[in-house]
Amino acid sequence: MRMYDIISKKRDNLELTKDEISFFVKGFTNGSIPDYQASALLMAIFLNSMTKREISYLTLEMALSGGKTDLSKIEGITVDKHSTGGVGDKTTPIVIPTIAALGLKSAKMSGRGLGHTGGTVDKLESIPGFRTTLSDEELVSVVNRVGACMIGQSGDLAPADKKIYALRDATATVNSIPLIASSIMSKKIASGSSCIVLDVKVGSGAFMKTLDEAKQLAATMADIGKSANKKVAAVITDMNTPLGNAIGNSLEIAEAVRVLKGEQKDDLYRVSIELSAAMLNLAKGIPMEDCRRQAENAVESGKAFDKLKEITAAQGGDVRVLDNPGLFKKSSISVGIKSPFDGYISSMDSEKIGSASVVLGAGRDEIKDKIDHSAGIILKKKTGDKVKKGEVIAEFFTNKADKIAYAEEKFLSSLSITDTKTKESDLILCTLTN
Amino acid sequence: MRMYDIISKKRDNLELTKDEISFFVKGFTNGSIPDYQASALLMAIFLNSMTKREISYLTLEMALSGGKTDLSKIEGITVDKHSTGGVGDKTTPIVIPTIAALGLKSAKMSGRGLGHTGGTVDKLESIPGFRTTLSDEELVSVVNRVGACMIGQSGDLAPADKKIYALRDATATVNSIPLIASSIMSKKIASGSSCIVLDVKVGSGAFMKTLDEAKQLAATMADIGKSANKKVAAVITDMNTPLGNAIGNSLEIAEAVRVLKGEQKDDLYRVSIELSAAMLNLAKGIPMEDCRRQAENAVESGKAFDKLKEITAAQGGDVRVLDNPGLFKKSSISVGIKSPFDGYISSMDSEKIGSASVVLGAGRDEIKDKIDHSAGIILKKKTGDKVKKGEVIAEFFTNKADKIAYAEEKFLSSLSITDTKTKESDLILCTLTN
Repeated sequence: MRMYDIISKKRDNLELTKDEISFFVKGFTNGSIPDYQASALLMAIFLNSMTKREISYLTLEMALSGGKTDLSKIEGITVDKHSTGGVGDKTTPIVIPTIAALGLKSAKMSGRGLGHTGGTVDKLESIPGFRTTLSDEELVSVVNRVGACMIGQSGDLAPADKKIYALRDATATVNSIPLIASSIMSKKIASGSSCIVLDVKVGSGAFMKTLDEAKQLAATMADIGKSANKKVAAVITDMNTPLGNAIGNSLEIAEAVRVLKGEQKDDLYRVSIELSAAMLNLAKGIPMEDCRRQAENAVESGKAFDKLKEITAAQGGDVRVLDNPGLFKKSSISVGIKSPFDGYISSMDSEKIGSASVVLGAGRDEIKDKIDHSAGIILKKKTGDKVKKGEVIAEFFTNKADKIAYAEEKFLSSLSITDTKTKESDLILCTLTN
Repeated sequence: MRMYDIISKKRDNLELTKDEISFFVKGFTNGSIPDYQASALLMAIFLNSMTKREISYLTLEMALSGGKTDLSKIEGITVDKHSTGGVGDKTTPIVIPTIAALGLKSAKMSGRGLGHTGGTVDKLESIPGFRTTLSDEELVSVVNRVGACMIGQSGDLAPADKKIYALRDATATVNSIPLIASSIMSKKIASGSSCIVLDVKVGSGAFMKTLDEAKQLAATMADIGKSANKKVAAVITDMNTPLGNAIGNSLEIAEAVRVLKGEQKDDLYRVSIELSAAMLNLAKGIPMEDCRRQAENAVESGKAFDKLKEITAAQGGDVRVLDNPGLFKKSSISVGIKSPFDGYISSMDSEKIGSASVVLGAGRDEIKDKIDHSAGIILKKKTGDKVKKGEVIAEFFTNKADKIAYAEEKFLSSLSITDTKTKESDLILCTLTN
């Protein structure tokens, strides 16, 4: 078998066989197929797409390329979630305790932040002592004891996907439904859970620009799930503004706590309830309406918040910062950012806001960069809000005085302020259950 | 400017600017753009094609990437030809002397053989003493004195094309009209002639499978020519059988001599006359019918053959082998290959015949391989001919006794022998003049 022939076949829009896809994934991962052949194939896939069969073969081959998490020793139904990415998305530390409080099990693996998007692992690590790396035995023991754990992705999880993603990132082949779907699902399948809920973002700042595209991605991932014997549901949410008000690691944990304490019933709360409900629906087959009510009750009763504290304690974290987020280490500088005009905020570019938070120290430009857990942005106004010239619309937290002006410039350039209020878009566009 | 954005743009089927194309060609040639980004762009070009403007920018940028042959000191109209490749194609040592005998000037540059196709430079070097490398001064002096020279391509000719071609060859992106046209024309433009005639092959063994595709390639090259102030004509010829009867270096020179002596009036003769006529038409604006007659007269009168001898002498070659090809060094073994069946030859796979000749020693598998100038194949029967079982249909010449069986197997597998004679296809399908 020759890589050349595999490229030609996909170039000519013919269906690749399981063996051909396996040859490519194995060969590229072990280095016998050079980057330049792999990138030619990826561009051909981008432009000619893939059949359901091809996508399923590609996903399973990537899932098999590294270690597979063995969740068989966990008692109960294991659930997992994945978000296609967003700024200010701190649903994991809300949803995972909520569904654990409802009796589901989850060994949730997350990533670190890079570029304008934050990472759940970084956020959790702002809790003093919180260990995001557990051995396999610890993982099973923690999940069996408290219902869930939240950890970092093992370096050995789907290495083929890691290598292919890096190449896609350099060759303008990221934004392809077959490639996005197989990348996400390969990691979720390797992670071992039996039910997977996907939070598919749609909007100008997301990979999927339209609801139709988002539905297509969700359907593709559901198909892959079926072929791997996994239950998959998708919640399609609007991403035209950051989720919640906090961007930055300890600021986001504090906000998650407010939601879990029932103190904040905003877009973040609603998306978190919907995702928790979809997980419960998938795992137990209970109608969505009942699932939503159960998820809300888990929050109202304080059980979900208690569960976050249990998980935190089980992973070595200091629960005192959860009971009193005022104990989080504070940044040395806080400064209010004022609106330059009177009017209504008609849109916020999440990517630019994420970048501004990186400038303040909350994220990384490169993998080796260190994160300042205390840095970030609290939004005082969001899309749809009326603002007055000179009114504080956001607060910056940082230890880098010299970066404030640049971050402010980036932040203000993210906003559109118009004379009249524009129509609000729906937050939860569609929930596709099994 | 970022290569990433250039790839995205072509991926999205948007037109690249002159600056973007220049950035790619320069960056890839100097190594600042990695192979994997270049191959992603090439696949996007393959699948989304290029506009006339883009093709012209790409060609001119590649033409400018190395040295440019300065033909300004040559008196008269300079003409050049290019064939899209064929087995047994020895039109250059027939056409160049013919048009030089008719008063045109040509500094013809050719390549060496690789794989199943032979190269004109190797063929010429089978003439003892023939120097295929001339300094710029020698080149001008020879052309001004005898009308033409036939040399190898300078290593510095369009190095961007050389590097891009090597990558296309490894990534299944060779067979794209914009990329083929720009590759050929970049070298022809850098070679400096003002009139260019293209021999575009069509058929199962050629890049262009149909007459329509071949016409499209010819039109694309003519458009490029126009944008570079060059006159371009194309002769579209059928390539379902090798041209002439000889395959192998000195065997082909001997055959070219037979044609120039008026002893062989076959497909090779007819294509050579048509190409010579198209060159004359392009340079002088004389109607094609008159041009054909003048080319035929140049051969009939012996003037074209005399010109070959003059050119050979001017380049240090021993003209005695031209007057008496029996003086060419002979291979130690010659063996007749017999037809395995009664019937008619309905097709010959040129590529397989070319490969058989390489096995006998006439060509190279790799650039470093040495060539045996005496080795090769003489076809006794060609497509359309009736054959009897046991009748000699070809003669092999080689110094490698142990390779004959393998070459014979390859050769016989190239033939289809059927019970009834199939309809003959036209040799010259179409001539597109200015």
